[in-house]
Amino acid sequence: MNRLRLSFSGIGVDSFLVSHLPNIQYLCGFTGSAGLLLVGDSQATLFTDSRYTFQARQEVFGARVYIAKQGLLRALGDALRAGRRRHAVAYETGHMTVAQKQAIDAIVRGRVRWANGESAVEKLRAIKDEGELTRMRSAAQLISDVFCKALPKIRAGVSELDLAAEIEYGIKRAGGSGTSFETIVASGPRSAWAHARPTAKLLGKSELVVLDQGAILRNYCSDMTRTVFVGRASSRVRRMYQAVLQAQEAAKQAIRPGVKAGDVDRAARQTLKKFDLDRYFTHSTGHGLGIEVHEMPRLGKGEETVLQEGMVVTVEPGVYLEGNGGIRIEDDVVVTAQGAVDLTTAPRDFLEL
Amino acid sequence: MNRLRLSFSGIGVDSFLVSHLPNIQYLCGFTGSAGLLLVGDSQATLFTDSRYTFQARQEVFGARVYIAKQGLLRALGDALRAGRRRHAVAYETGHMTVAQKQAIDAIVRGRVRWANGESAVEKLRAIKDEGELTRMRSAAQLISDVFCKALPKIRAGVSELDLAAEIEYGIKRAGGSGTSFETIVASGPRSAWAHARPTAKLLGKSELVVLDQGAILRNYCSDMTRTVFVGRASSRVRRMYQAVLQAQEAAKQAIRPGVKAGDVDRAARQTLKKFDLDRYFTHSTGHGLGIEVHEMPRLGKGEETVLQEGMVVTVEPGVYLEGNGGIRIEDDVVVTAQGAVDLTTAPRDFLEL
Repeated sequence: MNRLRLSFSGIGVDSFLVSHLPNIQYLCGFTGSAGLLLVGDSQATLFTDSRYTFQARQEVFGARVYIAKQGLLRALGDALRAGRRRHAVAYETGHMTVAQKQAIDAIVRGRVRWANGESAVEKLRAIKDEGELTRMRSAAQLISDVFCKALPKIRAGVSELDLAAEIEYGIKRAGGSGTSFETIVASGPRSAWAHARPTAKLLGKSELVVLDQGAILRNYCSDMTRTVFVGRASSRVRRMYQAVLQAQEAAKQAIRPGVKAGDVDRAARQTLKKFDLDRYFTHSTGHGLGIEVHEMPRLGKGEETVLQEGMVVTVEPGVYLEGNGGIRIEDDVVVTAQGAVDLTTAPRDFLEL
Repeated sequence: MNRLRLSFSGIGVDSFLVSHLPNIQYLCGFTGSAGLLLVGDSQATLFTDSRYTFQARQEVFGARVYIAKQGLLRALGDALRAGRRRHAVAYETGHMTVAQKQAIDAIVRGRVRWANGESAVEKLRAIKDEGELTRMRSAAQLISDVFCKALPKIRAGVSELDLAAEIEYGIKRAGGSGTSFETIVASGPRSAWAHARPTAKLLGKSELVVLDQGAILRNYCSDMTRTVFVGRASSRVRRMYQAVLQAQEAAKQAIRPGVKAGDVDRAARQTLKKFDLDRYFTHSTGHGLGIEVHEMPRLGKGEETVLQEGMVVTVEPGVYLEGNGGIRIEDDVVVTAQGAVDLTTAPRDFLEL
């Protein structure tokens, strides 16, 4: 919270209104589904409702808890209007609806000067501290183990939905509180769809299978993709796999503090170009990861964000040939002074099952 | 979409901008994660991005699909600004962020007169047609079956997390695309927390266990709670269970077209009052259900919404004794001319396992 306060003078405010729940969780620990956090220069208040009286008492640090009886916006508005001074408040324009803003304005009636605080907390969140890295390492280990345990079940005749169910069951059994996103199991031609949902389709012989899965453990996400082959692959498919693996390795090698996110993306693309496969790589190379499964920075074409120590990103090049199939290999890595260090540990060799 | 168009003249607009994804799905079938739907008086356009080119072609009805290259807001703004007439557009103030609104305004530069279209689509969604009811019946049947299959696994020594994993695995195996919400399994004193997340706690002997679960099947949600006892219950616990069951029955009996939502809630509360348990009933009696797990109408104290044929609501009274335990029984019902008809089918008898 003090890191956020350091930004106050720069944007000329005395308070920061945080409305995005993952940002609230990051700043004060609260994980409930209804909350507003008002961070002042010396104190902070979390507004929530009576469902969370007990939970807020257990979870919240660095802020007092106010249980709103007449709605959160009413309680917040009353607080902003109280006292003598006219407040200057930064707020998250990307995480406040027009209706919410109108409701607050109707209460404070010009007693607040608003400033744009968009992405300020997200920028703090991009750099993980040691405690966060410990959790993220565990979440990445968990999903790696779950994947390895599911491997023997990947065979012809099993449905995509069954495999997805197996993986999600494994996550819960291993202590994960849930999935970071809906597990993807896409086989045969469907593996060419980067965002395919699992269906009742059975895995066939001689098919690529893309498995993209993530677990939430102690509030932090992991996200890992592996692509395997059911049966014996052709030399063409093996070559494609090696191309993607080399592209991933090149991107990992490019990662170090001070490098631009776009340069990491370029490293992956250039490697695929050598194999004449770059035009089949239709998404960006990776994204930040933490409390949410998509965070800053984005490792995309031309991205200017400079990588810093403590950032955690996915590295996930892929190639997708419509009508044939797709291959994606994805790991979570942390940016260190020595370069990228893998958090996910499942083997990356081409597996023919 | 034509039902939405009927509201245009009333609010004095020629178009309606839909930004809430479940509303977009309802109106044109699109299930992707990025979309804006502009409904004009004679035609409609879905704006999405290149990830969804193929999916949109498969799913969308009643609207043309526009794949935005420079962002959805840019494409929408350009469309609104085109042509001769100045458009009057209703939009969903509760589902548009301040940042999005500012971005659109910067493009259209006063060429649009905005009107508040808050909840207009949600009101249409509250009443389900036959096709929707068929899906909801299947989703409710699925969760009922999954619960019944999990019953033999509920015994002392099993963890809450294991049971939750079992239920979620069952949902996927039965063809559900996911859970309507994170499955709740809360045992012993934890059953007194209405929104408890499952933990590693093992079920003990002589404990109440609340299981609250829901499945998504073909895009529609179910939501069902049962409370069971591990071991032999005291007469006091049995009496509490009967009180909750009678309260639920009274609420169901109160449901018919023309009745106010608040009257259904009162029926449940009055029954619990006879048992001197009404003060332990700390939430509302139910909520609408459909594409989302919480929809209109809310069956809460004093709610004036009038029930209509085709509405689907949960009926879920509960009592929660801090330090001891809680009991909740929840079914999904559809409002018909003959009254409430159950969609969920799992037995409601008090089970001592």
